[in-house]
Amino acid sequence: MFEFELLKIDGRARLGSFKTPHGDLKTPVFAPVGTQATVKTLTPEQLKQLGATLVLSNTYHLFLRPGDELVAKMGGLHQFMQWPNPILTDSGGYQVFSLALTRKIDDDGVTFKSHIDGSTHRFTPEKSIAIQENLGADIIMAFDECSDPNDKAYTQKAMERTHRWAERSLKAQTRADQALFGIVQGGVDPVLRAQSAKFISGMPFPGIAIGGLSVGETKQEMFDALDVVTPLLPGDKPRYLMGVGTPEDLIMGIARGVDIFDCVLPTRLARHHAAFSSEGRLNLMNASYKWDPRPIDPQCSCYTCQNFTRAYIRHLITSKELLAGTLISIHNLHSLIQLVNDIRGYIQEGVFESKISMLLEQWGNNAQRQMLRSDHEI
Amino acid sequence: MFEFELLKIDGRARLGSFKTPHGDLKTPVFAPVGTQATVKTLTPEQLKQLGATLVLSNTYHLFLRPGDELVAKMGGLHQFMQWPNPILTDSGGYQVFSLALTRKIDDDGVTFKSHIDGSTHRFTPEKSIAIQENLGADIIMAFDECSDPNDKAYTQKAMERTHRWAERSLKAQTRADQALFGIVQGGVDPVLRAQSAKFISGMPFPGIAIGGLSVGETKQEMFDALDVVTPLLPGDKPRYLMGVGTPEDLIMGIARGVDIFDCVLPTRLARHHAAFSSEGRLNLMNASYKWDPRPIDPQCSCYTCQNFTRAYIRHLITSKELLAGTLISIHNLHSLIQLVNDIRGYIQEGVFESKISMLLEQWGNNAQRQMLRSDHEI
Repeated sequence: MFEFELLKIDGRARLGSFKTPHGDLKTPVFAPVGTQATVKTLTPEQLKQLGATLVLSNTYHLFLRPGDELVAKMGGLHQFMQWPNPILTDSGGYQVFSLALTRKIDDDGVTFKSHIDGSTHRFTPEKSIAIQENLGADIIMAFDECSDPNDKAYTQKAMERTHRWAERSLKAQTRADQALFGIVQGGVDPVLRAQSAKFISGMPFPGIAIGGLSVGETKQEMFDALDVVTPLLPGDKPRYLMGVGTPEDLIMGIARGVDIFDCVLPTRLARHHAAFSSEGRLNLMNASYKWDPRPIDPQCSCYTCQNFTRAYIRHLITSKELLAGTLISIHNLHSLIQLVNDIRGYIQEGVFESKISMLLEQWGNNAQRQMLRSDHEI
Repeated sequence: MFEFELLKIDGRARLGSFKTPHGDLKTPVFAPVGTQATVKTLTPEQLKQLGATLVLSNTYHLFLRPGDELVAKMGGLHQFMQWPNPILTDSGGYQVFSLALTRKIDDDGVTFKSHIDGSTHRFTPEKSIAIQENLGADIIMAFDECSDPNDKAYTQKAMERTHRWAERSLKAQTRADQALFGIVQGGVDPVLRAQSAKFISGMPFPGIAIGGLSVGETKQEMFDALDVVTPLLPGDKPRYLMGVGTPEDLIMGIARGVDIFDCVLPTRLARHHAAFSSEGRLNLMNASYKWDPRPIDPQCSCYTCQNFTRAYIRHLITSKELLAGTLISIHNLHSLIQLVNDIRGYIQEGVFESKISMLLEQWGNNAQRQMLRSDHEI
């Protein structure tokens, strides 16, 4: 079912196609995040139009609200949110560790209190898989523990637990129509990362996720970790770098052999009125755009840039009109998806390596990243 | 330019076509309200898809923010908000009287303080027309004074001022590509209403608006006022009932010879999670819809009803996802526009009179109207 066809390799960058029950996924691919079964402010029709193929949704959020059993009863997540193309769900592990009010971890699982109403719940590998089977995504994740990368002793312990949980996640799976990915952990320690990459690679997962990055470490530490991990992964399985990233991260991740990315950045930036552009990031609330008749990015072919001026979008922002968030989200998501589409073309032509510095220069304006505490959805 | 072709009369209901620089408007027509140059939460593309033809925007709001000169500089309202079909602007009078922080009226005009920042401004008939010429809508309004219908002495004074302002508005017009409508006032007093209808009908306006209704009077008083006014209006000009209305108001207004309507009700209800349906109005936050796999209205052909369950929309509402407002707005606007489309068909067939009681029964559920203070945009 989940055949991954490697079409072309350019340096370490890979062009691939991953077969799923909801269509073939061209990789590399960037997935918009639809935390609560909706990519914020957009209809599925708008998502399709801007070029999205894979969408991520969050197990922790959907378990708490509306409940995975409700989603199952409504025919699964594809039917519920009306996304006919591939969907990926995470394991819920990251949100339990980053978002729940309290959590108590033991070797069997984790007991936590909901950030919504304080109610107590328990996730185990078996429970995470059962929830994800109810949700019915095409790609699902083994239950994992994401540690603080600065605490090495804890990182090792969390990694070992993640490995045992990976085995239990595999055993717990009952549906054959979902690709269960194992997750490599190990923080920023190269020895642990290598150990985890080898351990997870040795298991019969159809794909491999790289977790625990973009959680507070430096960019260099993230790239170093990727340099350790990806060469140890099997060549014939897709690799998914969880919760990453910025345009720069996508370029650098693809150059290190990553195939799948997801990040809330484009939609979160949109809610902060910030837009990607070939001039760098723009904050469209800025008074300098009040009389600006240009689109956000004159180079861009998205619906927003084909129709609306910066002056209009700024007017919507200052008037507190929700359409501002919709229009900027369309643009930001289209920009990252188009970046990845362009890179697929470069890999196909075998010229990606030679384009990296140009792409980094074009997309490297990262000044506003600091204003966002985390690029993971919370 | 602004030829109004009367295609068919059924009782007092009229089927017509009004030629504008942005296309022929089939009447009767219901116009969604885009107060701040955006119909809240919807792209123009979504508006087109749900069947909108005419859109209303508010002179008072656009004058204050972003400013009519900015809109003119951006090529006018059609270009600014990317609505290629007809647009109507009001005169700003109603919002000055209902929304400004303070107002001081004299025979020349009205001085008021902005509800946004308290700044002081002055509208006169000449200023209102100049602003509307900058905005560039197809249909514009004479500057008028809307009185409290329960104060007869004031109503008469306001009506007389409205008549003098109508003359000044006509004289102030410099553009030939905008249809300037005069406004009939007179509150709920049949003598004043008749007097105003005759006065405004005697002037060379290409269309006539009926103002000062749906502002606190009873439904019966509104219908009685229409019964006085419409028989006195020339048959060869379109009639616009401002800020009205509910489905019931549309049915009853068309039956009394009204051609054009606008109202914020569909989008405002959507923000309160309320949807029109053939079962009456639904509040989709209600727990009874949690597991409901049906669309809002199984009879409805809108994008929302063709794709999403009540359970999904309720999930979006409880999760505070903005897509809820978008999906319900699409449905509510489509419902009223479809109602008017159906009525046009009935008039064409000469059966509208015989359908009125059926339509009122289907659409008469008005229980939630009371929760909304006013159907005018504020």
